[in-house]
Amino acid sequence: MTAAQAPTPESPAVRRTREQVAALHAELVRYGLVVWTGGNVSGRVPGEDLFVIKPSGVDYDDLAPENMILCTLDGEVVPGSAGCDRSPSSDTAAHAYVYRHLPEVGGVVHTHSTYATAWAARAEPIPCVITAMADEFGGEIPVGPFAIIGDDSIGRGIVATLEGHRSRAVLMQNHGVFTIGRDARDAVKAAVMAEDVARTVHIARQGGPLVPIPQEAIDSLFDRYQNVYGQNPEGSLA
Amino acid sequence: MTAAQAPTPESPAVRRTREQVAALHAELVRYGLVVWTGGNVSGRVPGEDLFVIKPSGVDYDDLAPENMILCTLDGEVVPGSAGCDRSPSSDTAAHAYVYRHLPEVGGVVHTHSTYATAWAARAEPIPCVITAMADEFGGEIPVGPFAIIGDDSIGRGIVATLEGHRSRAVLMQNHGVFTIGRDARDAVKAAVMAEDVARTVHIARQGGPLVPIPQEAIDSLFDRYQNVYGQNPEGSLA
Amino acid sequence: MTAAQAPTPESPAVRRTREQVAALHAELVRYGLVVWTGGNVSGRVPGEDLFVIKPSGVDYDDLAPENMILCTLDGEVVPGSAGCDRSPSSDTAAHAYVYRHLPEVGGVVHTHSTYATAWAARAEPIPCVITAMADEFGGEIPVGPFAIIGDDSIGRGIVATLEGHRSRAVLMQNHGVFTIGRDARDAVKAAVMAEDVARTVHIARQGGPLVPIPQEAIDSLFDRYQNVYGQNPEGSLA
Amino acid sequence: MTAAQAPTPESPAVRRTREQVAALHAELVRYGLVVWTGGNVSGRVPGEDLFVIKPSGVDYDDLAPENMILCTLDGEVVPGSAGCDRSPSSDTAAHAYVYRHLPEVGGVVHTHSTYATAWAARAEPIPCVITAMADEFGGEIPVGPFAIIGDDSIGRGIVATLEGHRSRAVLMQNHGVFTIGRDARDAVKAAVMAEDVARTVHIARQGGPLVPIPQEAIDSLFDRYQNVYGQNPEGSLA
Repeated sequence: MTAAQAPTPESPAVRRTREQVAALHAELVRYGLVVWTGGNVSGRVPGEDLFVIKPSGVDYDDLAPENMILCTLDGEVVPGSAGCDRSPSSDTAAHAYVYRHLPEVGGVVHTHSTYATAWAARAEPIPCVITAMADEFGGEIPVGPFAIIGDDSIGRGIVATLEGHRSRAVLMQNHGVFTIGRDARDAVKAAVMAEDVARTVHIARQGGPLVPIPQEAIDSLFDRYQNVYGQNPEGSLA
Repeated sequence: MTAAQAPTPESPAVRRTREQVAALHAELVRYGLVVWTGGNVSGRVPGEDLFVIKPSGVDYDDLAPENMILCTLDGEVVPGSAGCDRSPSSDTAAHAYVYRHLPEVGGVVHTHSTYATAWAARAEPIPCVITAMADEFGGEIPVGPFAIIGDDSIGRGIVATLEGHRSRAVLMQNHGVFTIGRDARDAVKAAVMAEDVARTVHIARQGGPLVPIPQEAIDSLFDRYQNVYGQNPEGSLA
Repeated sequence: MTAAQAPTPESPAVRRTREQVAALHAELVRYGLVVWTGGNVSGRVPGEDLFVIKPSGVDYDDLAPENMILCTLDGEVVPGSAGCDRSPSSDTAAHAYVYRHLPEVGGVVHTHSTYATAWAARAEPIPCVITAMADEFGGEIPVGPFAIIGDDSIGRGIVATLEGHRSRAVLMQNHGVFTIGRDARDAVKAAVMAEDVARTVHIARQGGPLVPIPQEAIDSLFDRYQNVYGQNPEGSLA
Repeated sequence: MTAAQAPTPESPAVRRTREQVAALHAELVRYGLVVWTGGNVSGRVPGEDLFVIKPSGVDYDDLAPENMILCTLDGEVVPGSAGCDRSPSSDTAAHAYVYRHLPEVGGVVHTHSTYATAWAARAEPIPCVITAMADEFGGEIPVGPFAIIGDDSIGRGIVATLEGHRSRAVLMQNHGVFTIGRDARDAVKAAVMAEDVARTVHIARQGGPLVPIPQEAIDSLFDRYQNVYGQNPEGSLA
């Protein structure tokens, strides 16, 4: 590689986001949310109109900060950036749409995790019948429209569906699940929790009728969790 | 850190309990009982009116003896103790209530493990149809009331429900499972076994009607297991 | 330990059996057949009226050749043998009964693996609807009687049930699964395959009616597998 | 070993195929598609009328390039080749049939993975209700006939069934799943994805009616994925 071809120098914020996004993909593997090269994490670069996302069709074992793809908020690869010779995730347009339309979102995750996708294949929202789900999602996990990859229709479906709900997760019909967070790690947590509640509620209902949680209890649990839980509660996104 | 800020020296019993409680969280991960930062183990400090519990919202990979939280039996963090700058588990009040009201209990575990929580979402006790369950729990695993975090209501529900049963595990409606033991390790074993029987009995019933075990056989199995099994049988707690 | 307390010297065959039995327990863990200290493997000592079995209630991580228990075919611990200060598995009487009554058996395994135990909780044999099951078990996996631990009744139930079947696995009602093999490794393979077919057939039937395999095809598959498959086919046991 | 017994020198293409096929078996283990010694991967040697396949009944931990078996397209072991003292997989005739009749196929995989085999035990094709399945298989995963091992009937069933479908996977009734690919890695990917969709669609349908995907959307997804996805799209095989 000649000097002319060397990647453009990047800000510390870009480098940190590359490291975080690359590392967080290991959590998708650890929790069994993805197989082969499916699934993707992105993170907004703090203070810049950019985000970092996984390359398309690359093994999880081969992901590294320098092969993550740096994109503008229009979903275009930044020319001359590290990894720019590769294609970004085929879901990049959807991630970009979310970043453009939801400025408080700092991270987006997409998976085809088994139980979440099973609810999506029935276009059925996941009812809020366990307290951990009230804590994390504040109610049901809703279903967005069937949308074909390749234009803004997936992104539009995500944003329009999340607007009517507290949930940071949305099931896209016949497809899988998208989650948002205040940063990439927070969106990964939402993806892990979404699959966990999708599985638990599926299994619960296989055994018989579910006991609902009263709405005021859901409200109280959600409020406490967003404001009290953990070492540094920072409030809800959605 | 200046000398004035150094943690108060702790007894060997506190240090050993910190080590045990920190290490036992790895068993929750090994058996798939928890995701992300959910779930918690606590252990009573032998000979002192104290217990040790997990901090709130901290990664399992980052748990260590020195960041476990030392609490009084009222659930208050001991001022000046190691880790006292962090918040204890949001379930601390429930653990404390159990230690205050059940003096024979030396360990408490709480998880949202999948199958146990599925029974809890239906408020349905797990029937005793396998001998390992008769051994370990002496009958059904009962369901306690729906209770909101934040006061003594979870603790009261646990204690009141366990009083009428041999079981060391209680499903809390719409929430998850709490287990007790003569020490923290014993409570972790109960949590592992509770999920195991919750899963096996769920799957069994999906396939058709279950064959009950006669009550006298349950009694005989429970008695033998509590008094004969293992290298150092020490009898049942509950 | 003084010289007087040193374990009795053991034959190479005993030492090899201790090593094999200790190591094979790791396969039960690898395939998820056991939790905590449940489950046990034993192996007959070739050329001696002895077998080696797991100690009772000991962690899988702590199993080693020297703490395996050496027993006579009456299920008595050999005095002075390595590990003889510990109790053998509480299922030792059942293993001993099998070795006494089935001289061709060189290994016995017992687990409470999830799906096999689920069928056992319904006292329902597993129908032979997949070719791998015809290969390995030659037909259905049958169910033995409900029997309480502590005398010969489990052993008698295992032997009586296996006599009418090709299967090397038997589900004991409300309890779990026992498997036999020409050696301990072969019995472990049968335990792994029994859980695999128990799971597959359970899931298959949840989705609708199963397609039976004609009896002559089952016979043909079983015959081929016992005589042709693998590098050193040695024929069937049962 | 004397010089006369040394294996015949092999071409670089054979050696590379041995390495690839041996290594790819680890993916079957990683994704839980196989137990014990079940399952097998083969790869065609580029530019030669040969393929490499797993030996029969050998532990996954013991697989290595030098014990893979080199076969002619008639399924005969190449005399004098490395590993030729061992038997090839008992499914070798089926793999060979596929290579002879489908010249564009460079890899074949066979497993008894749980969910795929469950659909096969009902002789029921997996309907295409998730977009990842439309991407990868272009429609349903079909079911081939019941066929006994030992002649060409399995191979004939695979080829005849695949001819009427875009799918690179075929469920063989009461048996398991076979997949094909442009090379061995691609066939392994198809095996991983086939089990993933078999599981997701099974679980989805347990919860209620599935929402179909319109045929034109399936067509569009399949076309895009075969031509656009990943770093080096190379088009579909089937």
